[in-house]
Amino acid sequence: MTNPTLAIIVLILCTFSNGAKYKPNWNSLQTRPIPKWYDQAKIGIFIHWGVYSVPSFGSEWFWKHWKDGTDGYKDFMKQNYPPNFTYQDFGRYFTAEFFKPDEWAKQFKKSGAEYVILTTKHHEGFTMWPSTYSFGWNAMDIGPNRDIVAELSTAVRAQNLKFGAYYSLLEWYNPRYLADSNANFTTNNFVADKMYPELLELIETYKPDIIWADGEWTAPDTYWNSTNFLAWLYNESPVKDAVVADDRWGKGSLCKHGGVFTCQDGYNPKTLQKHKFENAVSLDKHSWGFRRNARLEDILSIEELITEVVQTVSCGGNIAINVGPTHYGKIPLIFQQRLSDLGSWLNVNGQSIKKTTPWKYQNDTLNSNVWYTQAKPAVYAISLKWPENNIVELGAVKELFGKHKPKVNLLGVKDQLTYKVTKKTVKITLPDKATVKSKWAYVLKIA
Amino acid sequence: MTNPTLAIIVLILCTFSNGAKYKPNWNSLQTRPIPKWYDQAKIGIFIHWGVYSVPSFGSEWFWKHWKDGTDGYKDFMKQNYPPNFTYQDFGRYFTAEFFKPDEWAKQFKKSGAEYVILTTKHHEGFTMWPSTYSFGWNAMDIGPNRDIVAELSTAVRAQNLKFGAYYSLLEWYNPRYLADSNANFTTNNFVADKMYPELLELIETYKPDIIWADGEWTAPDTYWNSTNFLAWLYNESPVKDAVVADDRWGKGSLCKHGGVFTCQDGYNPKTLQKHKFENAVSLDKHSWGFRRNARLEDILSIEELITEVVQTVSCGGNIAINVGPTHYGKIPLIFQQRLSDLGSWLNVNGQSIKKTTPWKYQNDTLNSNVWYTQAKPAVYAISLKWPENNIVELGAVKELFGKHKPKVNLLGVKDQLTYKVTKKTVKITLPDKATVKSKWAYVLKIA
Amino acid sequence: MTNPTLAIIVLILCTFSNGAKYKPNWNSLQTRPIPKWYDQAKIGIFIHWGVYSVPSFGSEWFWKHWKDGTDGYKDFMKQNYPPNFTYQDFGRYFTAEFFKPDEWAKQFKKSGAEYVILTTKHHEGFTMWPSTYSFGWNAMDIGPNRDIVAELSTAVRAQNLKFGAYYSLLEWYNPRYLADSNANFTTNNFVADKMYPELLELIETYKPDIIWADGEWTAPDTYWNSTNFLAWLYNESPVKDAVVADDRWGKGSLCKHGGVFTCQDGYNPKTLQKHKFENAVSLDKHSWGFRRNARLEDILSIEELITEVVQTVSCGGNIAINVGPTHYGKIPLIFQQRLSDLGSWLNVNGQSIKKTTPWKYQNDTLNSNVWYTQAKPAVYAISLKWPENNIVELGAVKELFGKHKPKVNLLGVKDQLTYKVTKKTVKITLPDKATVKSKWAYVLKIA
Amino acid sequence: MTNPTLAIIVLILCTFSNGAKYKPNWNSLQTRPIPKWYDQAKIGIFIHWGVYSVPSFGSEWFWKHWKDGTDGYKDFMKQNYPPNFTYQDFGRYFTAEFFKPDEWAKQFKKSGAEYVILTTKHHEGFTMWPSTYSFGWNAMDIGPNRDIVAELSTAVRAQNLKFGAYYSLLEWYNPRYLADSNANFTTNNFVADKMYPELLELIETYKPDIIWADGEWTAPDTYWNSTNFLAWLYNESPVKDAVVADDRWGKGSLCKHGGVFTCQDGYNPKTLQKHKFENAVSLDKHSWGFRRNARLEDILSIEELITEVVQTVSCGGNIAINVGPTHYGKIPLIFQQRLSDLGSWLNVNGQSIKKTTPWKYQNDTLNSNVWYTQAKPAVYAISLKWPENNIVELGAVKELFGKHKPKVNLLGVKDQLTYKVTKKTVKITLPDKATVKSKWAYVLKIA
Repeated sequence: MTNPTLAIIVLILCTFSNGAKYKPNWNSLQTRPIPKWYDQAKIGIFIHWGVYSVPSFGSEWFWKHWKDGTDGYKDFMKQNYPPNFTYQDFGRYFTAEFFKPDEWAKQFKKSGAEYVILTTKHHEGFTMWPSTYSFGWNAMDIGPNRDIVAELSTAVRAQNLKFGAYYSLLEWYNPRYLADSNANFTTNNFVADKMYPELLELIETYKPDIIWADGEWTAPDTYWNSTNFLAWLYNESPVKDAVVADDRWGKGSLCKHGGVFTCQDGYNPKTLQKHKFENAVSLDKHSWGFRRNARLEDILSIEELITEVVQTVSCGGNIAINVGPTHYGKIPLIFQQRLSDLGSWLNVNGQSIKKTTPWKYQNDTLNSNVWYTQAKPAVYAISLKWPENNIVELGAVKELFGKHKPKVNLLGVKDQLTYKVTKKTVKITLPDKATVKSKWAYVLKIA
Repeated sequence: MTNPTLAIIVLILCTFSNGAKYKPNWNSLQTRPIPKWYDQAKIGIFIHWGVYSVPSFGSEWFWKHWKDGTDGYKDFMKQNYPPNFTYQDFGRYFTAEFFKPDEWAKQFKKSGAEYVILTTKHHEGFTMWPSTYSFGWNAMDIGPNRDIVAELSTAVRAQNLKFGAYYSLLEWYNPRYLADSNANFTTNNFVADKMYPELLELIETYKPDIIWADGEWTAPDTYWNSTNFLAWLYNESPVKDAVVADDRWGKGSLCKHGGVFTCQDGYNPKTLQKHKFENAVSLDKHSWGFRRNARLEDILSIEELITEVVQTVSCGGNIAINVGPTHYGKIPLIFQQRLSDLGSWLNVNGQSIKKTTPWKYQNDTLNSNVWYTQAKPAVYAISLKWPENNIVELGAVKELFGKHKPKVNLLGVKDQLTYKVTKKTVKITLPDKATVKSKWAYVLKIA
Repeated sequence: MTNPTLAIIVLILCTFSNGAKYKPNWNSLQTRPIPKWYDQAKIGIFIHWGVYSVPSFGSEWFWKHWKDGTDGYKDFMKQNYPPNFTYQDFGRYFTAEFFKPDEWAKQFKKSGAEYVILTTKHHEGFTMWPSTYSFGWNAMDIGPNRDIVAELSTAVRAQNLKFGAYYSLLEWYNPRYLADSNANFTTNNFVADKMYPELLELIETYKPDIIWADGEWTAPDTYWNSTNFLAWLYNESPVKDAVVADDRWGKGSLCKHGGVFTCQDGYNPKTLQKHKFENAVSLDKHSWGFRRNARLEDILSIEELITEVVQTVSCGGNIAINVGPTHYGKIPLIFQQRLSDLGSWLNVNGQSIKKTTPWKYQNDTLNSNVWYTQAKPAVYAISLKWPENNIVELGAVKELFGKHKPKVNLLGVKDQLTYKVTKKTVKITLPDKATVKSKWAYVLKIA
Repeated sequence: MTNPTLAIIVLILCTFSNGAKYKPNWNSLQTRPIPKWYDQAKIGIFIHWGVYSVPSFGSEWFWKHWKDGTDGYKDFMKQNYPPNFTYQDFGRYFTAEFFKPDEWAKQFKKSGAEYVILTTKHHEGFTMWPSTYSFGWNAMDIGPNRDIVAELSTAVRAQNLKFGAYYSLLEWYNPRYLADSNANFTTNNFVADKMYPELLELIETYKPDIIWADGEWTAPDTYWNSTNFLAWLYNESPVKDAVVADDRWGKGSLCKHGGVFTCQDGYNPKTLQKHKFENAVSLDKHSWGFRRNARLEDILSIEELITEVVQTVSCGGNIAINVGPTHYGKIPLIFQQRLSDLGSWLNVNGQSIKKTTPWKYQNDTLNSNVWYTQAKPAVYAISLKWPENNIVELGAVKELFGKHKPKVNLLGVKDQLTYKVTKKTVKITLPDKATVKSKWAYVLKIA
């Protein structure tokens, strides 16, 4: 009925009528630098919230696993719902009655994070704003009866945090998507009539600082019309100057094309990366969305969380720490506890993370507990353990201890530390642990 | 993003590539005759069933009245639902657990009706089949979890009844429609991307014998692309030979363009019409959808119903008798009672209704209780009252009682009746009422 | 812990301290005459309304049939509810939001009934008033959040109708009842601590004009403490002068002890009864409570209903016509239709029913369609059919047509009728049926 | 109707027929010693779970606060429920679908607790077992459809933990209780017919090791029949030998009569008590039941929790640590975290808590961070802080450091510690903190 091919031609013509900066091809698009604010921010919060937060069982892939007949999911439905209950029927119970966006924003701020990414639409297709293209299947029409994207983005910005929009390109069970999929993506009605205009609406309305695409793996970027989108985003959109995009724009795109590389969920390479990356890591090891059946041992401990932060930043990445709110709109307290603890750690040690750049070395050459960052002229050696003998022995920093005898401090402790330079290492004597305020990880500043 | 104008041009070019019978303009379209089966059928059943059957309060315009702040509707919501409850939240409670399409079809068959029209989509936009274009807002995705259109059309046809599809062009609160509306219908994204392909899907999938468009009044037929649609319907569609369309195709179309004229709800003109028309009349005088607050006096009595049938057919129309099923899938017994009573009346008197044509006169010139039909060579005088003196005095038939002395019978009674021809009238003596089986209305066959 | 035997002894001593009129034994209790108002009223309305009106499937015995594993019931639950759903969970959905007691009372009034009996507690144990003895399982605490007994009794009396209280002695699943039952009713804690004080509360609070006990069959009246109750009711209670009790007071009590005999559901003996009886008959032949799966053919036709009324009254009984309201508080329109039709019949023929007494004969000796009543000096011959030859031939009335030539009229028609007395019969010539207003049954008044 | 006075007399006669050990008066009852197992256990878990876990807002006093019109509660209902929603209507949503009693029991075991007390009935009157006396308002009849008391007590005992039953004497809105209350407790029908037999059923069926009465404050113990109950409990009940009762048996009973003194919620006297007491303390400072609106700062930190444990045990008390599970049957992870952390602390330091007795001193005379316990011959000095100078200076222990030079150890560290005895104090040098495994509090064993 419609003729998307023609439509897209028209679009392209319109888009590139007057010497745009970026061309709709990867070579051109990748010349765009990562915006500085993002590189300096280091820590963000990721939020997975949607209709899956109602069953809140298994994971945010609940619908898929259930329909695929995965054990546990089928049983859960059988034991708790009438036989004809549909996934969309859950929508009515997505009540969000305790959702206070200001409260969330303050909790995120307290954690030391500098940006907040919300799943504005996950693979289920439910939009968290009243999308023009998702009538009856969005948070205004069903469930919360609120524009979650508007409310959260406003609240987050009031805390001087940036706002990012996660957006799934695919929708598992949208019949228009399935029709294209069944045609091996030789048709693209779903993209032309639904996804593309919806994505533009999202950006034009809420002006997100980050576009975190996902659900791209089933089809090539040409199907998703990704290069045209990014050219528009970088050349024309209201957020063209400072917006950050990720790398999920089509089959094979991951870790290769786009802006920030996310590569895979929980990407923590532990070696220096040539390209800016983001390690998206969930506090619940087995789910991004809230699930009621999580066990305590499934939750990252504060030590594990700080390890992720330190390793990621050391290697040049940002970390996006994920929380899954409940269907009624609260961040579970165990997640708040982790964020709060991270915040108190950063209060002491934040200078070794924020606005730093990777140093020459990442993980120390001898001491596997130590990771480096730098903020010139200082180098930070972050130790994930406190040695029983109170001496941190380092290999990589040897070269800094040449003529210039650098000052060494433990962040949070006034007095300078003494050290001994050996043939291959430097042995730094820590202060009496009884006098140290920091917990979980300890930062040596070498200036 | 899309370019519907171009798209439509392409469509038009495709559609008329090889000498189609009907051109996409009213002059051409209206040359198509009304299919014979429809003209002969006379009586159909109309079914209004949708999400409004859940609140089942006020009328099927519940959503509109509520949002407009109409008294009663607002109060109903305030007294019975939490403040944030949305209309779409009702969808989950549209359970249809008692819906047995075969049972319905038999009840309709028993009434003497010959076709059944279902609201496949009302102004709320909820589709009763899993429309590709209404993800999450259809009877498969939410509520019944069933393809109502498939189930009912199959069951109805198994009873040798025709199946018709009511379809609302507009959708009150679909944002794509509202966007077009706000642009004074200078854009038509809603039609191009949603309504038009959806309507085609409906027809191609379920091959309805009747297309009963509605919700057309807000925009000209050019917006709805109606002439192209009808040209396609009559030239190309799988139902092109015998399909019946109505007259609701754009502002000003009513009673003027299209197939059967419906003119207005409950159109009972009481004079002979030049154009085939349909009197759609609801058994609940104040609502098409089931409403729990209906009073007994709001329901058409069997006498009133038969009066509607007789007057309508006499003037050349068909009648579509509407019932509103409950959200759980039953036709309320009071409606079943009326349909059953109509069926028993037709068992005796059906020959005066089915396959008849209007006679020279409709309402008798002297006796306002009497209406005529004919099935050559017989003329039927249908009296809505039984005269206390047992004599029916008629004016219009005088001319039939010239040389040829016609035989006169009361349907259901064997013996011929006697009569007396006066200067201006014929006085027919009815049989002893104690011997008559028919109730409510009495048919004299003049052969 | 409690000592009901002692408690009851104390009660008995208190009760009979000063020469009470009736002793707590059947011989004494049965000397009490049936109150005149009841004998004259003839027609009452029975209402079965309770938590079973929520599933509204099968019958008001839903809980029992489900728990007994009856086919259909088990399936219904399996197909529509999660596995752990309990019967009491239905309570929350007993919303009654459309319940307007004045509306009901007017509908009942219009039917010609003179009293209204409500199931204040059925075998499920749910009380329709905030019983002190049924915390959390009554219509104030759960579901309607209203005192249904108070509201309905007030509304009914405002229409000059009497109010009766149906009350089930047993409670299928009340553990205190089950404990007594398991002890072969050698204990009576349920009666002493729950049933008995609750029944007294009911009577003292709402002063019902009728006590319609039920659920008595499992245990002897001594278990239920019935004779003491009735002695209290007749001697001491606030309704002692005019209250009517039924005959369901213990195993073997039915049709033998107590006030009005109800004998069995739908008791229509068709012969003169020595003892005043009541024919409780449901408009739905298969259920007392509303059930959504009722078919039209399950509903008494108006002809069947009038037949029941006429036969019952002719034999000296009252009829209680049962309706089952929906969980949302409406009398289904099909029942309203029957009641309204009965009312219009009584408008013409009421004098042959109300305040009449049985005549010497009930069913005519020759004409099985005719039943008699009398209101001295008139005898009423009620014909359930209209004879095709317009002549009603009667046997039983022969003796009235001796010397005194009685006047014979058809109710609703002015002129006297002619008749012919033969050897064994009287042949009465009916008026021309075209002139008769009455439908369904025709009353000859022989004065 | 019943005669409770007589009944109670009978009971008393029956109870004391043959030389019972304890008489139903406080003087006699209080001669019974606290069972040894309880005194040694020190740490228990308290669980508040009931219908209030459904709204899970404000506190377990939700019903009372709502009905009293307390701000916040009224608004919560207004914003989230229809106007006629009742408290009992919540029962249906108490689903408990994730409740796995073995999982709970293991979590409690891991915390180091030795007993688990469940609210078998709170002031709302809802019983967590199918009480014979609470038909329709218990966890089998409505909501979970399970015998929670049976399931949990079995699971808990399988972990070698004792099981205790919290039981509220009063029921805020039980009409039988209210009637007694309105009569200034001159009647006691509620106790005689409901509370008393129910409490006996609870004990006879589940044989709890602890009876934790509550809700006693409105009426004297004579109303609740408490001394008779306790005499039965200690003389006759199946748990007579080892059961522990608390002190909530009537107005003025608190901290004065009964078994273990609970005195007030969160009773932490900080001085040695003559009578065995229990400090019941909730991990959520503002609620015993789970409430969704709890903030992180409302939750006891692990430091605060260990402080409560140490102070309480030092003064001779037990501590019952309360958690509020969700309506779906999970212990919130933040509570699991605290319990798990406590368990890991006890793994190192448990010998200073379990089976100890108070020492001569409780809080050190000079060092307010230090509390004492003993397990002869060892004395434990538990320091809630680690001193920056690594020296713990103690006053109270001076006398132990006379001739016999005691050995001093830090639990979890092998080497003996050195110390210096001064005129009034002992200065103990702690090991290098870098070598210490224990966190949060540090135990010196002085043997």
